[in-house]
Amino acid sequence: MSFSQVKQFLLGKTLPTSAHDEERLTKAAALAVLSSDALSSVAYATQETLLVLVAAGSGAGVLGFSLPISLAIVLLLIIVTLSYRQTIRAYPKGGGSYIVARGNLGLLPGLIAGASLMIDYILTVAVSVSAGIDNFVSAVPFLRPFTVELCLFAIFLIMLANLRGVKESGRIFMVPTYAFIVSIFVLIGVGLFNQATGQLTPISAGETVHKVTEQLGLFLVLRAFAAGCTALTGVEAISDGVLAFKPPEWINARQTLLYLGIILGAMFLGITYLAHIYQLVPSESETVLSLLSRQIFGISPLYYFLILFATPAILLLAANTSYADFPRLCYFLARDGFLPRQLALLGDRLVYSNGILLLSICAAVLIVVFRGDTTAIIPLYAVGVFTSFTLSQAGMVIHWYKGKSRGWQASALMNGLGAIATAIVLVVVVLTKFALGAWVVVIAIPLLVWLFGSIRKHYLYVASRLSIQELAPRSYMARPKGANATHPAIVVVGQLHRGTVEALDYARSIGDEVVAVHVDTGSTNREKLQTRWQELESDIDLHILESPYRSVVTPILDFVSSFEDQHPGVLSTIIIPAFVPRRWWESVLHNQTTLFLKAALRTKKSRVVTTVRYYL
Amino acid sequence: MSFSQVKQFLLGKTLPTSAHDEERLTKAAALAVLSSDALSSVAYATQETLLVLVAAGSGAGVLGFSLPISLAIVLLLIIVTLSYRQTIRAYPKGGGSYIVARGNLGLLPGLIAGASLMIDYILTVAVSVSAGIDNFVSAVPFLRPFTVELCLFAIFLIMLANLRGVKESGRIFMVPTYAFIVSIFVLIGVGLFNQATGQLTPISAGETVHKVTEQLGLFLVLRAFAAGCTALTGVEAISDGVLAFKPPEWINARQTLLYLGIILGAMFLGITYLAHIYQLVPSESETVLSLLSRQIFGISPLYYFLILFATPAILLLAANTSYADFPRLCYFLARDGFLPRQLALLGDRLVYSNGILLLSICAAVLIVVFRGDTTAIIPLYAVGVFTSFTLSQAGMVIHWYKGKSRGWQASALMNGLGAIATAIVLVVVVLTKFALGAWVVVIAIPLLVWLFGSIRKHYLYVASRLSIQELAPRSYMARPKGANATHPAIVVVGQLHRGTVEALDYARSIGDEVVAVHVDTGSTNREKLQTRWQELESDIDLHILESPYRSVVTPILDFVSSFEDQHPGVLSTIIIPAFVPRRWWESVLHNQTTLFLKAALRTKKSRVVTTVRYYL
Repeated sequence: MSFSQVKQFLLGKTLPTSAHDEERLTKAAALAVLSSDALSSVAYATQETLLVLVAAGSGAGVLGFSLPISLAIVLLLIIVTLSYRQTIRAYPKGGGSYIVARGNLGLLPGLIAGASLMIDYILTVAVSVSAGIDNFVSAVPFLRPFTVELCLFAIFLIMLANLRGVKESGRIFMVPTYAFIVSIFVLIGVGLFNQATGQLTPISAGETVHKVTEQLGLFLVLRAFAAGCTALTGVEAISDGVLAFKPPEWINARQTLLYLGIILGAMFLGITYLAHIYQLVPSESETVLSLLSRQIFGISPLYYFLILFATPAILLLAANTSYADFPRLCYFLARDGFLPRQLALLGDRLVYSNGILLLSICAAVLIVVFRGDTTAIIPLYAVGVFTSFTLSQAGMVIHWYKGKSRGWQASALMNGLGAIATAIVLVVVVLTKFALGAWVVVIAIPLLVWLFGSIRKHYLYVASRLSIQELAPRSYMARPKGANATHPAIVVVGQLHRGTVEALDYARSIGDEVVAVHVDTGSTNREKLQTRWQELESDIDLHILESPYRSVVTPILDFVSSFEDQHPGVLSTIIIPAFVPRRWWESVLHNQTTLFLKAALRTKKSRVVTTVRYYL
Repeated sequence: MSFSQVKQFLLGKTLPTSAHDEERLTKAAALAVLSSDALSSVAYATQETLLVLVAAGSGAGVLGFSLPISLAIVLLLIIVTLSYRQTIRAYPKGGGSYIVARGNLGLLPGLIAGASLMIDYILTVAVSVSAGIDNFVSAVPFLRPFTVELCLFAIFLIMLANLRGVKESGRIFMVPTYAFIVSIFVLIGVGLFNQATGQLTPISAGETVHKVTEQLGLFLVLRAFAAGCTALTGVEAISDGVLAFKPPEWINARQTLLYLGIILGAMFLGITYLAHIYQLVPSESETVLSLLSRQIFGISPLYYFLILFATPAILLLAANTSYADFPRLCYFLARDGFLPRQLALLGDRLVYSNGILLLSICAAVLIVVFRGDTTAIIPLYAVGVFTSFTLSQAGMVIHWYKGKSRGWQASALMNGLGAIATAIVLVVVVLTKFALGAWVVVIAIPLLVWLFGSIRKHYLYVASRLSIQELAPRSYMARPKGANATHPAIVVVGQLHRGTVEALDYARSIGDEVVAVHVDTGSTNREKLQTRWQELESDIDLHILESPYRSVVTPILDFVSSFEDQHPGVLSTIIIPAFVPRRWWESVLHNQTTLFLKAALRTKKSRVVTTVRYYL
């Protein structure tokens, strides 16, 4: 099977550009594709909150703090949801933080938002995949040693699904999202029913004994709050992806965002409440969700359905959310010249394939570096999200103020509230998690912004150098040829064979001054070569160059540069004969001098290099 | 530091070809460079014999068999040494098995000998390096977990030394060879003195308790003999490398071979005898040599000198023997067209660098596959050696018979005896070690021979296709141009920029029929492009090609092939403008379409592809 056949088998056949706008999502599918990041965070947000608190002890007095913290987070969720509903209305074609911040606040805030988002999308993939596999191996403990391998395999599968195209990935992934939502609500329902009927048995502390390492103080509570705020990541995805909805895009997007907020808030509160009433103490060998559902469902098919299938599946979907948004963000940045242009190209399946590949590679690197440990990656997370939340909503305030459309004050108020709330959270997140890893992101964001600027500068420089503004019209006659004007050509001769002869014939046809060079590295029979040459090619001079150090390339470079000096003002053509074997791997049997020579001519700034191929 | 600076620092400066024959070895240096493989095998040959025997029990009755086995091996050594002295006399320019077998027995036996030797040289590196490191970590046990890394580092160092050139490696390595020889003789002397004075204390069995897994029978004794025969590997190296000696080459080589035989035989017998009288039982965590010298010298500077320095050092030299011979063998095979020609090229330092690199890579792979375990690699060893011994000596019998020079009968008898003896050993080695790993080599030898044949066939095919036997003399006038003869050129236009304009100007200067093509992947503003075109390049037609599937390459390929069909009999030039950024890494910011296009034109068999570069 050839490479292109393998590719077609994995990715499906190439789609024409005209098929582009068929790839749209229904609301139900969009909830699966765009909102699973937010929804799935209930699988780790409660756990990470508890894992912070447990440092101060595992009694109900300490862990009970998770309840007020969760309420604060849900309040924040309501504010952010309402705020983003304004954004969608104002940006019916998709208002990602980059677009909104750049359009309203200016270039630098836009780039900061863009950098924050890029980092966060990568972290979303890393966190979601590792949390998904964490749940999976909670149910199948003997696979725990293979956590990293499983994570990488999951990233590979998601990448493939996305390279196939967004609609198909929507179809593949709808079932597990709804399976997860329903399962979680069943879990919460059964848990509450147990409480109401008095059948509730607390979860035994299990094998883990937690050492009290810190005092319960404001800082720890704030850090627990910051850890729980990861529940909000992904809420902005819908506003980025408005154009992925079926028409009327913005109305569908707004409704979907509302559903998302309600479902997410209910699930998060429910799980935190269950963890509280079941007196759950977090463990390192099993996730909170696994502990809870094992207690509530027992080791039953329902338990396995939730922990082995639905939870890992929606977490992989969450990673998938980034696959919908990261390439789109890269497209915007690349279109504006802040990222390499290749990121703006539509691939065979009408997706931004390069962005998808870039995201996969970055996430895989994170997984390997952090050995697939969710808790280790979490402190890096959320800095980017809240930076872009803040910038985006601050931008919206300016937007409303400038536009002054009907009822703008209410929208501006809503967005302003959102901006202030998320800014405060951002400060909390950075301060409480700085030493734990947030510093990486605090450094990475300005670095990325600098990179954007450098790339843009390079493109501008290239454009200015390539500009044809002041050029006069060209034609065959435009440049009068002086008496000395020639078309000089140099033919590089290794051995005198059929390929060389063809190249010399070609040189005769394009040039009126042709010379040939041969390098003697010590093994040439010069007399024989000159005799053959005189028999066959007597009208072209053959220069045989000495090479005491056996380099073929250096003498040719010297010859070419002195030849070019003798022909100022015209382009000399350097002709390299090459024969092409029947099968590509046969070329390992032949010297790769042609390649080295081409590379060397390139560094010496030779302008016109021609390969004349002879096919065996 | 640039690549070439790093290279010069590691390898020394490039030497001119004229410096070649200064790089010759004195007898003392040649013994270090060419014979250390044979000499060093005393560091493992006794041990491997004992490790086979111990399967039948660790009593003196069983292990005592090592003495008669050693005597048989020394007898074999005498035969082989005397036999190879004949070879050196007959082949004063170097008579490796490949040359001798090919010259006297024919092509196929020659190739079999060549393949056997190649495999064996690789195994010599793997076995010697792993045995050297095994001794090293016997003295420094805490480094044992890093055996593989240490082996790979050692291979890297030896590779570097050899890439620098043979004379320098001789100088570097002379000291340890003689240090080893002297230390071993001191060890044997002190051991014998202890025995004579009755101060001998047997080595306690130590921690290892050996389970008796096999009956002591003929098969086991033969297998122990086969394991011990690894002592003979490397004896042929001197006859391969006659030309590395100072003149008179063959006389010096012959004398050196004799010294080698005497020293090797004495050391091997001595160590085996010591192991016997000290009632040594082989262990897996410490080498026999380490056990012996610890008992005889105690944990003294002498012990560390032998085990930590001299033994590892000479074993690395043994690996170095292969570095003298493997590249030379590859040169012979490549010169005759059985291996890629690159292996026949002299590198910057007048050594066959490609052969050195190939050997290093193969040996490193073996080390990694076998986790650096000498005992695991040993069964693969010796099959190749004894195959080439047999073929080489059988070839010599034919040589003497054909030449019938004075006293040929004695030489033929000596070589015939050698051939028969080594043939018998070969059968024993293959039969007793087949299941343990020798089968790999038994399969690999014919595979390699088949590969040699295929490579040769390819070169012959290429030569026949490139032959210019029947071509008539060429000249500007030789091919009369018909009324239709043109020099057609196609210029590929991405955007209309300075680089494109230059390429078009160049096309005008070489061609009298120029067309331009542009591919619209959906983002071209066609009207604007055509307007600019008419302003600037109105004398050349611009074809804008549709690309519904967004491929740039496919439409151009189609256009080129129909264009070439319209211009039969002449070579059309395909001109690709390329701009080169100031720094190489900036090219990641630009589409690599040029590369893909060139590769695609190559597969479509377009003959003349010209790159016109514009330097920013």
